[in-house]
Amino acid sequence: MILDIINKKRLGKELSYQELDTIFNGYLKGDVADYQMSALLMAICINGMTDEEIFALTKIFIDSGDILDFSDLPGIKVDKHSTGGIGDKTTLVIVPIVAACGCPVVKMSGRGLGYTGGTIDKLESIPGYRIDLSDDEILKQVYDIGLVVTGQTGDLVPMDKAIYALRDVTSTVSSIPLIASSIMSKKIAGGADKILIDIKVGNGALLSNREDAKKLGDLMIRIGEYYGREVRTILSDMNTPLGKTIGNSLEVLEAIDVLRGVEKDNPLVDLCVTLASNMVSMSLDIPVKEAKEKVLEVIQNGSAYHKFEEMVQRQGGNLSKVKVSNHVYFLKSPKKGVIQKIDALEFGKLALYLGAGKMSMDDSIDYTVGVKLNKLLGETVKKGEVLATLYYKKKLPEIVFDNLYKID
Amino acid sequence: MILDIINKKRLGKELSYQELDTIFNGYLKGDVADYQMSALLMAICINGMTDEEIFALTKIFIDSGDILDFSDLPGIKVDKHSTGGIGDKTTLVIVPIVAACGCPVVKMSGRGLGYTGGTIDKLESIPGYRIDLSDDEILKQVYDIGLVVTGQTGDLVPMDKAIYALRDVTSTVSSIPLIASSIMSKKIAGGADKILIDIKVGNGALLSNREDAKKLGDLMIRIGEYYGREVRTILSDMNTPLGKTIGNSLEVLEAIDVLRGVEKDNPLVDLCVTLASNMVSMSLDIPVKEAKEKVLEVIQNGSAYHKFEEMVQRQGGNLSKVKVSNHVYFLKSPKKGVIQKIDALEFGKLALYLGAGKMSMDDSIDYTVGVKLNKLLGETVKKGEVLATLYYKKKLPEIVFDNLYKID
Repeated sequence: MILDIINKKRLGKELSYQELDTIFNGYLKGDVADYQMSALLMAICINGMTDEEIFALTKIFIDSGDILDFSDLPGIKVDKHSTGGIGDKTTLVIVPIVAACGCPVVKMSGRGLGYTGGTIDKLESIPGYRIDLSDDEILKQVYDIGLVVTGQTGDLVPMDKAIYALRDVTSTVSSIPLIASSIMSKKIAGGADKILIDIKVGNGALLSNREDAKKLGDLMIRIGEYYGREVRTILSDMNTPLGKTIGNSLEVLEAIDVLRGVEKDNPLVDLCVTLASNMVSMSLDIPVKEAKEKVLEVIQNGSAYHKFEEMVQRQGGNLSKVKVSNHVYFLKSPKKGVIQKIDALEFGKLALYLGAGKMSMDDSIDYTVGVKLNKLLGETVKKGEVLATLYYKKKLPEIVFDNLYKID
Repeated sequence: MILDIINKKRLGKELSYQELDTIFNGYLKGDVADYQMSALLMAICINGMTDEEIFALTKIFIDSGDILDFSDLPGIKVDKHSTGGIGDKTTLVIVPIVAACGCPVVKMSGRGLGYTGGTIDKLESIPGYRIDLSDDEILKQVYDIGLVVTGQTGDLVPMDKAIYALRDVTSTVSSIPLIASSIMSKKIAGGADKILIDIKVGNGALLSNREDAKKLGDLMIRIGEYYGREVRTILSDMNTPLGKTIGNSLEVLEAIDVLRGVEKDNPLVDLCVTLASNMVSMSLDIPVKEAKEKVLEVIQNGSAYHKFEEMVQRQGGNLSKVKVSNHVYFLKSPKKGVIQKIDALEFGKLALYLGAGKMSMDDSIDYTVGVKLNKLLGETVKKGEVLATLYYKKKLPEIVFDNLYKID
């Protein structure tokens, strides 16, 4: 029976809800072996899935665990998801902005994966910040101050955890149907009314070309329609790290600068304004243009940053204690020219090797290390000018300049 | 590294010898997990392999174990392989024929797999017959009487055993490149100078259509060219069981009838003559037509059957003790008409359920059970006429007539 199902997908045929349910729930129960599921996943990666199959798989994923219900909260709950990138600290910026615009936000975030950091790790670089709020604490905090960013509560989509772990070790991660059902099942099970997806495109992202990213976005919109959830998608570049910093404390500090309106000429600001404007537009059901005016206003008048401070304080964090390492290395330009490339993937690896992420399950994260880009893409630099500052702890990893930069 | 290799094949790109070697030998050493290898195998099944990849994989398979050397034996050593079918007892018939024609034959055979029987199981239904001859015994027997059929000696292509076991449980068996490298590596490691392949086509075989069978044959010929081995291929039908019997003792008795020249109007005879003629043609380097005359002669003059008796006696077997069960059931036609279908796969299953093969590793084979077809494809039958005799032991399995036969 299991072999027939695998064979059917191998031949590129459509699996029924029943067949998908049998094999995926069989896997979760331990009746289907890892090697059988990985063979099926590879067949799905290569032969794809129809929309009907993807809708069915999304349902099977959702039904595998708890489903959260925030319907007691007033207003339209908008959730935002990023497909993951290097230096992506947008959640830290946009949640306070959106809350300051009067839209309550419950954001459950995750940890870093591979070369990409996680919002929860970033917040933990603020000493004392609690990421393990209970459901009651979450609801009370949202009623009181209108925002919360915490770790996941409940047992949301346990099937995704199991399947993702297997995909990660079998080169079956970058499959559009599998990415779409994984993300959408978590957002729907998480109780979102509307969903904004930031799809990263580039060598530091799951998807490296715009065409695939567009396909993924369209698919998630169709899944949303099927489940009665409005979905909007934003495609954003991930060939270059986002903003000026990579590494947990450094990213928190950069997010604060954006919230305080002191960052200029930083692509991070534009992306955060775009994402926040869309969330406000969806939550208040107003045009994006009108929402953007509100967003710019709450940054300018300080209320967005105030919301951030309020949230950190409420969750026990002490912003004055955020630390970066005092071992620094200045990476200088070997020649003059224009910065043509700042490689996202290579900078992600560099931050990981510096200790900003986990290389293995047993590693611990050093919140104080990372990279600050002193010069951004397109800037002209002199020979010997500092391109980036590396914050390290024990020793520097080997640096291959030409992997990181192209200067011409 | 392993993930990069899997991903490359997932994207349909060509893997180098070094990459194939890394992942396949890594698997044999335990460095590559089952679930990773099954993902790669599925990618190979769907995306295929180039000839260069197949030649490389065949070499990696060969090099994984012992390589037999029969160069001390006089003459050209021709090996024959069948891709497996229901009621296929050709080896029992053609080896004595070829030996009687003056061509020494060392045939190492295997056990049954799935619904298909194995030559070694069939020979073991002859009480006393030894299938575990040592290398010295094999050589001495071939020098003395010119033929031997035994189990495999040495540790030939252990990688094939490991990979086949995984393919069997992940729906990755029927891949032309994987079938070709599996068969050819075993034949080349087994010391054959020339190789004859009987490719079965039909619902009781690995491949169900002639186009795929032709592709497999052409590929094996190209692998043979690459390794300096002449390869000939014969395509033969496996929608219908081969000959009149399925089950170990029954098949031995049918083989004896063919060798003694008493079988008429049996497609088994034609196939055996074709295969034997090609083996003699290859071994003596003479045209097939000339070889066929010799084949027909050694059947007619009794020397082929004599060779069979000589071999069985030499290997300790006692033909007079071959037994069939005395519990018989006559399967009768529910109507008059012409037999349009005798389903190979369904008869294979029936023989298995009767006990002629193993349903699980712990089962033992009952040599005395099986099926005898009293009427063959295309024959006209009356209502109530006996179509087949089932030899059983404990109790009959459930029989769904319309699965087995079509009569119109």
